[in-house]
Amino acid sequence: MNYAEESLKKHYEWKGKLEITPRTAVDSKETLSLAYTPGVAQPCLEIQEDVNKSFELTRRWNTVAVITDGTAVLGLGDIGPEAGMPVMEGKCVLFKAFGDVDAIPLCVRSKSVDEIVETITLLAGSFGGINLEDISAPRCFEIEKRLKENCDIPVFHDDQHGTAVITLAGLMNALKVTGKKMERVKVVVNGAGAAAVAITKLLIFAGITNVILCDRKGAIYEGRRENMNQIKEEMAKITNRDKITGSLKDVIKGADVFIGVSAPAAMNTDMVRTMNQDAVIFACANPTPEIFPEDAKAGGAAVVATGRSDYPNQINNVLAFPGIFRGALDVRASDINDAMKLAAAHALAELISEEELNTEYIIPEAFDPSVKTAVAKAVKQAAYDSGTARV
Amino acid sequence: MNYAEESLKKHYEWKGKLEITPRTAVDSKETLSLAYTPGVAQPCLEIQEDVNKSFELTRRWNTVAVITDGTAVLGLGDIGPEAGMPVMEGKCVLFKAFGDVDAIPLCVRSKSVDEIVETITLLAGSFGGINLEDISAPRCFEIEKRLKENCDIPVFHDDQHGTAVITLAGLMNALKVTGKKMERVKVVVNGAGAAAVAITKLLIFAGITNVILCDRKGAIYEGRRENMNQIKEEMAKITNRDKITGSLKDVIKGADVFIGVSAPAAMNTDMVRTMNQDAVIFACANPTPEIFPEDAKAGGAAVVATGRSDYPNQINNVLAFPGIFRGALDVRASDINDAMKLAAAHALAELISEEELNTEYIIPEAFDPSVKTAVAKAVKQAAYDSGTARV
Repeated sequence: MNYAEESLKKHYEWKGKLEITPRTAVDSKETLSLAYTPGVAQPCLEIQEDVNKSFELTRRWNTVAVITDGTAVLGLGDIGPEAGMPVMEGKCVLFKAFGDVDAIPLCVRSKSVDEIVETITLLAGSFGGINLEDISAPRCFEIEKRLKENCDIPVFHDDQHGTAVITLAGLMNALKVTGKKMERVKVVVNGAGAAAVAITKLLIFAGITNVILCDRKGAIYEGRRENMNQIKEEMAKITNRDKITGSLKDVIKGADVFIGVSAPAAMNTDMVRTMNQDAVIFACANPTPEIFPEDAKAGGAAVVATGRSDYPNQINNVLAFPGIFRGALDVRASDINDAMKLAAAHALAELISEEELNTEYIIPEAFDPSVKTAVAKAVKQAAYDSGTARV
Repeated sequence: MNYAEESLKKHYEWKGKLEITPRTAVDSKETLSLAYTPGVAQPCLEIQEDVNKSFELTRRWNTVAVITDGTAVLGLGDIGPEAGMPVMEGKCVLFKAFGDVDAIPLCVRSKSVDEIVETITLLAGSFGGINLEDISAPRCFEIEKRLKENCDIPVFHDDQHGTAVITLAGLMNALKVTGKKMERVKVVVNGAGAAAVAITKLLIFAGITNVILCDRKGAIYEGRRENMNQIKEEMAKITNRDKITGSLKDVIKGADVFIGVSAPAAMNTDMVRTMNQDAVIFACANPTPEIFPEDAKAGGAAVVATGRSDYPNQINNVLAFPGIFRGALDVRASDINDAMKLAAAHALAELISEEELNTEYIIPEAFDPSVKTAVAKAVKQAAYDSGTARV
């Protein structure tokens, strides 16, 4: 199928992928008087008295805003806020279909960090959570950080953290299959964008100690001068403990794991051959991966994952964000923290039993109905344990 | 029925009066690939090329934001943004039920005119229209004015203009019933808030020349010193051509029409007795009107309208805003201007035939199914005629 052509045709037919539906009829003077004036004054007064009641008397408890500025939409780059809306609407469809979450798509006509932060901060009382989407790096780090400080509801940049959770889940299972230990493996993450940074941080939080982050100039290390920025400086402090220098081709030698969130064809078979035995390759550039599975296997890779649905082991964000927000909303969490993300990754990994687990099946399928429930349950428990749960 | 108690109970049951519903299923890899990645890239690119396509490829064409800052919610005053949400959700239910419009409730955590204007301006690309709601005067005037300048979509403060449209419609029919002429009647508008100002302006636009606006200090006139503000100064210039001074009790003498959007019991039977024969009384304070219909009738009033559903002639905003936005959205209007409001009022008034028209039936019923269609049609035509229509 020509997805581009067919999707465009469908979008003209759909005329929007979302609709706002009343949960109660207003078809008589009486029902109007209950859902609206004069009756509605009473729930208003209850919320005025205790603002937490807004999570009981309005849809806030189940509502997430999906917000973009249109600067990093899919692989299309800075296409503008309105042009990002088909993706936001699609994300909202996924939120409902996979997480029973009511999601509202919003685009912000600004590229200013200050303006975006202020706009979203002032709207936070309308929602139970905020999902940032397709905002370019490094602005996304600052925007997320400041919003987390400003808002009393979870703020989650899915391009970072959703991807990180699924990658970690897949890696846990890939290491199980290949008999390797988190504490011992050498991991190379290629790319220094939003996803790469979040993946690296979550891997470290999960117990991986030997990880090297590479950008186009090669390994990032403390003291590197060229092509650095604030987030790379920060990453240099917590990765690459031996301050190894060189290109990806250099540092990949002897690595156990390659995680690519970078560009098509960044890896090749010869480079895989220089890795340790039973190498694990996550080639997530989409639609053209850093290396195709057959080429990675030819170099000796034991496990290969990609972002594609036509190969085994698809790293698909729909596995994580619906269950994560479902769990966070259910306990009215104030934040989605690292402990909750780690719990989500464990839950995802453990959905595959030891009997089922094999090199071609390390990550659950997107349409596996047990995913949401398992992830939500784990996230809820972690929210209780880490003190972010409020009910 | 005890509406307060019953409504609160219902709100706890409903857990929110709105839901976001997908218009297409994502239940297979194929449907996922069309509604989301990779297919969704194509509609995004189409919008990047021509931003107007956002009205065809996303829900923007049918979406209105219902936005408050919670400062003037119903008659409850400044109860805070979250506490205003039950009303916003209710309004969105009415938008869908009465106008087939998808409406998104938003509350802004700020009372600063600058911050509110900036927030809404930056979000305008997400919507086809903006309905401001329950924002206190005089801030609402400045907010609406600046948003109209900033935004390329209609901005409509319903508490002002919706009320004005229905009041004008009712007045047209009340004058028909009593055999009076717009150009000749003396009208007194009591109240100097959002609704009073908008009503007065629309009456003047419709051809009424003799109108006096009163606040608690009495008639507003050019040159008055005490208790003035910017909007009152502006109103003084276009009303009260004879610069009459005095209390409401003074200026109501010899008036043909009293329009109250003020406070309970501002009028009494004796004051009605001093008005011209066949006086028309619109007593819209809610739930307790400026004067009850029986008391107005006792003073000689020929026609009485209120905001209440348990008396004839209810001034109910649901008669106007759904059809007005329906019409504006259908032609992708850039604005809802005075000509469109006047057209809506004419359409509403003309829904009652000369045979049906009588002192107890000057305004259509809220649940009359022909209202939306008639109002939308008139608004569309006026949008074409006045140049705001874009398709």
